[in-house]
Amino acid sequence: MKPGEFQLIDVIRRRAATREDVVLGIGDDAALLRMPPGRELVVAMDTLNAGVHFPEDTRVDAIGWKSLAVNLSDLAAMGAVPAWCTLSLSLPDADRAWIEAFLDGFFALARQHDVALVGGDTTRGPLSICVTAFGSVEPGRALRRDGARVGDDVWVAGLLGDAAGALAQWRAGAGVDDALRQRLDRPVPLVAVGCALVGVAHACIDVSDGFLADLGHICTASRVAAEIAVDTLPCSTALREAFDPIARRTLQAAGGDDYALCFTAPASLRDAVGAIGDVSEVAMTRVGRIVAGEGVSAFDRDDACWAPGRTGHDHFAD
Amino acid sequence: MKPGEFQLIDVIRRRAATREDVVLGIGDDAALLRMPPGRELVVAMDTLNAGVHFPEDTRVDAIGWKSLAVNLSDLAAMGAVPAWCTLSLSLPDADRAWIEAFLDGFFALARQHDVALVGGDTTRGPLSICVTAFGSVEPGRALRRDGARVGDDVWVAGLLGDAAGALAQWRAGAGVDDALRQRLDRPVPLVAVGCALVGVAHACIDVSDGFLADLGHICTASRVAAEIAVDTLPCSTALREAFDPIARRTLQAAGGDDYALCFTAPASLRDAVGAIGDVSEVAMTRVGRIVAGEGVSAFDRDDACWAPGRTGHDHFAD
Repeated sequence: MKPGEFQLIDVIRRRAATREDVVLGIGDDAALLRMPPGRELVVAMDTLNAGVHFPEDTRVDAIGWKSLAVNLSDLAAMGAVPAWCTLSLSLPDADRAWIEAFLDGFFALARQHDVALVGGDTTRGPLSICVTAFGSVEPGRALRRDGARVGDDVWVAGLLGDAAGALAQWRAGAGVDDALRQRLDRPVPLVAVGCALVGVAHACIDVSDGFLADLGHICTASRVAAEIAVDTLPCSTALREAFDPIARRTLQAAGGDDYALCFTAPASLRDAVGAIGDVSEVAMTRVGRIVAGEGVSAFDRDDACWAPGRTGHDHFAD
Repeated sequence: MKPGEFQLIDVIRRRAATREDVVLGIGDDAALLRMPPGRELVVAMDTLNAGVHFPEDTRVDAIGWKSLAVNLSDLAAMGAVPAWCTLSLSLPDADRAWIEAFLDGFFALARQHDVALVGGDTTRGPLSICVTAFGSVEPGRALRRDGARVGDDVWVAGLLGDAAGALAQWRAGAGVDDALRQRLDRPVPLVAVGCALVGVAHACIDVSDGFLADLGHICTASRVAAEIAVDTLPCSTALREAFDPIARRTLQAAGGDDYALCFTAPASLRDAVGAIGDVSEVAMTRVGRIVAGEGVSAFDRDDACWAPGRTGHDHFAD
């Protein structure tokens, strides 16, 4: 494998872009990077395994795209400006065509965000892709999970349920809607939105495990509770057309892998949030609010399936 | 798997030490880290796969130790002071006893070098461990592969061949010598030596692929050649007792996984190198020198198997 490994690294190195702040990129024992002065370093690391994080029949370029996207989404959820990444590729064999297709997707997204691949390794093993992404924020200004305050609005940037919808269709063995599959395979990390939310949002998380679960992480970390109107969760036309309302709401509330951002912000900054949505052309949807207590209460006006103790109250009336 | 995943992360978080420069560690979308002012960031990433990078019967605590050790060794080869790391663990199932044993080894080494685990993820998949290690160096002072100069001595810090010897014994199915197995399973990254070599060594690499191959990387990057006397390569007593001289020299010259450091330094700094060896209690062995040309010429006085064009010349006479 060794000659194959070095050839693969050469293929990757030849295609990797660089940046002015990369002192030394791929090809030594480690990369040397120049941090922007007076900024905090932000680091995220996520692994994708075949059959676990993507269906086995996923296009190879989509695997490349998604492996970086899920990490840039983590940086976005912190409000960080991305800068560099490293990539560890475990491959059953050193297949040149596979790696070129993988890099097509990986670098297509990297270029969009001026992210330089600066190191990593390639090893023999079951298909697995591990990426570490690096960015920076102004000290003390990162969006964290623990900043939500009672009275905050709960917002979603982007749409919910498409990726889970595609996966449900794929599992059912019927055809998968192209628009939904695109959202599963090539999720768009909301980098500009995350950066713009610095100073606006009190808390933020990216929706990878499922909306209610991820909002639950914010509530736990912030020691608050949330009330959500499930019928207000943002939804694509494709999802609305492909599923009945009950199935759709489950996908939106519990399905993961959309890489929307869930954040909380004070009611006084609704216009600011709206402006960020306008500039970034990303749907900003107010879906609930932060209250005292613990846990996430979800209710649905249409189905009258209210959470205990919340019956008949419109939690979004001002 | 999800509840299992979060429980595993809690186990890891509970045991992870922190540092004053960790603003936010495990538990958010990304870690927040404070770089020491005026330093360059150094980043290494290496993956270990079961059956590829360690025998399937390797002790679990040794897998934990080694997964961090190979990365700290990369930082050492740059002369970097380690600070933080992230860990991505792919596990076939969420086994609490396995993870505790893994962390025993991982954190034992992390503590020795004051390295804080600040993030990562756990996922379901074939056993695979990916670590990213972060350190810092004074700008422009990192040890790189491309700094070797004609006339430099070639040095080895540490011993060569033990890990390959253990692997050879393991593959032969006979017993494995304890001392050799220890070197395969729990390699010691030469962090203090690497840091001390800043300002002394012109080029450095850690010996992971095999001594001649790794020195070849220095020669290629520096556009120079090297002449090595194989009979001078440093050797442990255990290796000397376990293998005949011919087998032993092959293990020393071509076997990887020792995580010794191979470096070049001007002849005028031999005393400085010796002093670093004395202080760190690591064997420093001069094994050859850098000459004009390309490639690595290895010769062996005992066997009279000289490299072409080098016959009869003692390349180490001063």
